[in-house]
Amino acid sequence: MAARDAPGVTETGRLETFADGVMAIAITLLVLEIGVPEVDEHGSLGSALLEQWPQYAAYAVSFLTIGIIWVNHHHLFSVIERTTHAFLMLNVVFLMTIAVLPWPTALIAEHLREEASRTTAAIVYGLTMTAIAVMFNAVWRYAAAGLRLLPPDVDRAELARVSRSYLSGPVTYLAGTLLALWDAWWSLGLFALLAIYWLLPGSGPRIERLRRVG
Amino acid sequence: MAARDAPGVTETGRLETFADGVMAIAITLLVLEIGVPEVDEHGSLGSALLEQWPQYAAYAVSFLTIGIIWVNHHHLFSVIERTTHAFLMLNVVFLMTIAVLPWPTALIAEHLREEASRTTAAIVYGLTMTAIAVMFNAVWRYAAAGLRLLPPDVDRAELARVSRSYLSGPVTYLAGTLLALWDAWWSLGLFALLAIYWLLPGSGPRIERLRRVG
Amino acid sequence: MAARDAPGVTETGRLETFADGVMAIAITLLVLEIGVPEVDEHGSLGSALLEQWPQYAAYAVSFLTIGIIWVNHHHLFSVIERTTHAFLMLNVVFLMTIAVLPWPTALIAEHLREEASRTTAAIVYGLTMTAIAVMFNAVWRYAAAGLRLLPPDVDRAELARVSRSYLSGPVTYLAGTLLALWDAWWSLGLFALLAIYWLLPGSGPRIERLRRVG
Amino acid sequence: MAARDAPGVTETGRLETFADGVMAIAITLLVLEIGVPEVDEHGSLGSALLEQWPQYAAYAVSFLTIGIIWVNHHHLFSVIERTTHAFLMLNVVFLMTIAVLPWPTALIAEHLREEASRTTAAIVYGLTMTAIAVMFNAVWRYAAAGLRLLPPDVDRAELARVSRSYLSGPVTYLAGTLLALWDAWWSLGLFALLAIYWLLPGSGPRIERLRRVG
Repeated sequence: MAARDAPGVTETGRLETFADGVMAIAITLLVLEIGVPEVDEHGSLGSALLEQWPQYAAYAVSFLTIGIIWVNHHHLFSVIERTTHAFLMLNVVFLMTIAVLPWPTALIAEHLREEASRTTAAIVYGLTMTAIAVMFNAVWRYAAAGLRLLPPDVDRAELARVSRSYLSGPVTYLAGTLLALWDAWWSLGLFALLAIYWLLPGSGPRIERLRRVG
Repeated sequence: MAARDAPGVTETGRLETFADGVMAIAITLLVLEIGVPEVDEHGSLGSALLEQWPQYAAYAVSFLTIGIIWVNHHHLFSVIERTTHAFLMLNVVFLMTIAVLPWPTALIAEHLREEASRTTAAIVYGLTMTAIAVMFNAVWRYAAAGLRLLPPDVDRAELARVSRSYLSGPVTYLAGTLLALWDAWWSLGLFALLAIYWLLPGSGPRIERLRRVG
Repeated sequence: MAARDAPGVTETGRLETFADGVMAIAITLLVLEIGVPEVDEHGSLGSALLEQWPQYAAYAVSFLTIGIIWVNHHHLFSVIERTTHAFLMLNVVFLMTIAVLPWPTALIAEHLREEASRTTAAIVYGLTMTAIAVMFNAVWRYAAAGLRLLPPDVDRAELARVSRSYLSGPVTYLAGTLLALWDAWWSLGLFALLAIYWLLPGSGPRIERLRRVG
Repeated sequence: MAARDAPGVTETGRLETFADGVMAIAITLLVLEIGVPEVDEHGSLGSALLEQWPQYAAYAVSFLTIGIIWVNHHHLFSVIERTTHAFLMLNVVFLMTIAVLPWPTALIAEHLREEASRTTAAIVYGLTMTAIAVMFNAVWRYAAAGLRLLPPDVDRAELARVSRSYLSGPVTYLAGTLLALWDAWWSLGLFALLAIYWLLPGSGPRIERLRRVG
């Protein structure tokens, strides 16, 4: 009866555990995409490893992106205090967009150096990133609309600013995806930059302020 | 001694953690079934990706089904408040039916477009789905029989309605499995429809009412 | 500071979470060992699936064995109330014997029908099972010796009975391993029977009584 | 709202759960690196298994190293009592170095017996180990600097000793990596010895004392 009235285990506890589990597994499965090169007698392992660089780049960008999503999901649940059946289902769909990411990561790593396939792979990768950002917003907006799952004393002006700031995610990722039509490298470079930018201390989300208020 | 008398960690806590873990891993492992197509110089990655559509369909149906099972297992433990040795073992068998799902998912994805193999693959997939639903009912019925693991003040009339409503799972999935003998596509379409239907807000389980009462 | 003085999270909490995680992942990874058969135009998927039966048998025995180990580990922590550095390390080695099980499971599934390899595969499988049982006893004995990690009011006579009853694990698994030298099928049949036997309600461990006393 | 003010769930709880998840998955995925040998009619499974010994050695060293890192991360959070956005991000990068370990483990297992590739593989493996140790120190130093995330009453002299003792990790692993330039076997032997040494009871970290004081 952990979810109802046990002291110290909140109503959102099991959702957070499940979401953390899926994100922890998806982030760790990414490593299976990096191959171990075979080397014949004339080749060197060093150069075979260097040739694999798109795999490391794709690994790092996807890992950091899931990590950042996890941190932000974590922040959401510092203010969300209830769940509903529909909210749980919305989170399942959100988690599906994250859990599928190892696949487009392997796709882009495999096809990044092929002139003909690069654009298609970058678009699939970008669309997955965009879908994650869209579903993150859907989860938040469901919880925040009319303070459905938030405490009643939240500052509504600050809440509106938080909701607006989250919109930058889908917009930026969609722009990065469209960029791939012009040049796949620029598109992927943008995703890498976004991962690094959000990793920096100053980029902490506005929801932190809400938390201090709420 | 988390399971006995620590405040804030109920007797069912570790079972819920383990079950969440197995379900989170099974749902995330599904992605390994989606392959990265290789493309020769005459082919295009785009059309190779489109040809793989049974893999995406199988992935989505299995992912949403496990997600829905997780949500419902979560609901069960809002009223179940104790465990026994036999109940833990019953949950282990229940989790086995879920943990095996990535395999029939890969099976159906691989064989969906082969006239000769399609029916067999659809039956194996359907039987796994049916086994999950049967074991879910077994877990619930063990807990509910004579209020074995439920609080004493549960409304017995409502309890009977909840138990009856859960029976629709095995019946529908068995019907879907038998449908495959006639046409594998209809069978799989039914499983997809069920996943979408249970995802919708209105389909919340009756156990929610029990929870408000209990 | 969850592990020290937060109410509701005991000192053993994080060890239990980590152990549950490793066991949940090992049990779920087992599914990757079951292959999806390819079928040429003359073959049938049905018979190809039936030919794979050693994979299903190995999967089921390993799954149920890890499940039973999890239930028993869970029981241990109903009386263990502290940890030490050495105890954490002992658990890491215990978890290594469980985490490696998917490998001998794949080994036996692959070689069960080969006359020449069967015995070797069965011995490796049996030795892994024996190692799990030995480490389980080592974990328990470290905790129980001089009531090192147990509450002071435990009934010492009952404790001695519990410790003795756990010894049946390594003895039976070692016997099953040696049986493989004579006939690999009997050896594996014994492991299957053990898994089914421990699954049955009556086989609940004596530690349950300790729990009621302690 | 588990992370803010629920009694019994501290502010660091969800970070610990996520970190435990990633470490539990990385440690368990290592098993996928051990292959099942195929045997032709003239070979024996026994000798094919013995020839695979670098895979078992690499598995054991990596497993025990992640296990030891987990125990030490666990110890850190017996004194760390708060988180910040930057600290969460630092932990994401730390977890990336651990989550990638299955890859260099597979690399060294594959290339250990090839004269020409051995050194390169050992350097990549050693650099990953060093990166783990460096990030572990970065996580600790961020938390400890000016008692940023520690309780105010920590003994500062003891704290300085703890911080100094953790420095031995990156130094030893970097030395082991450089050793590979001279002889890859000595390098790997050192990593194996380190894993065994840290497993022994006497090697418990000084932070334990801090915990008793703090």
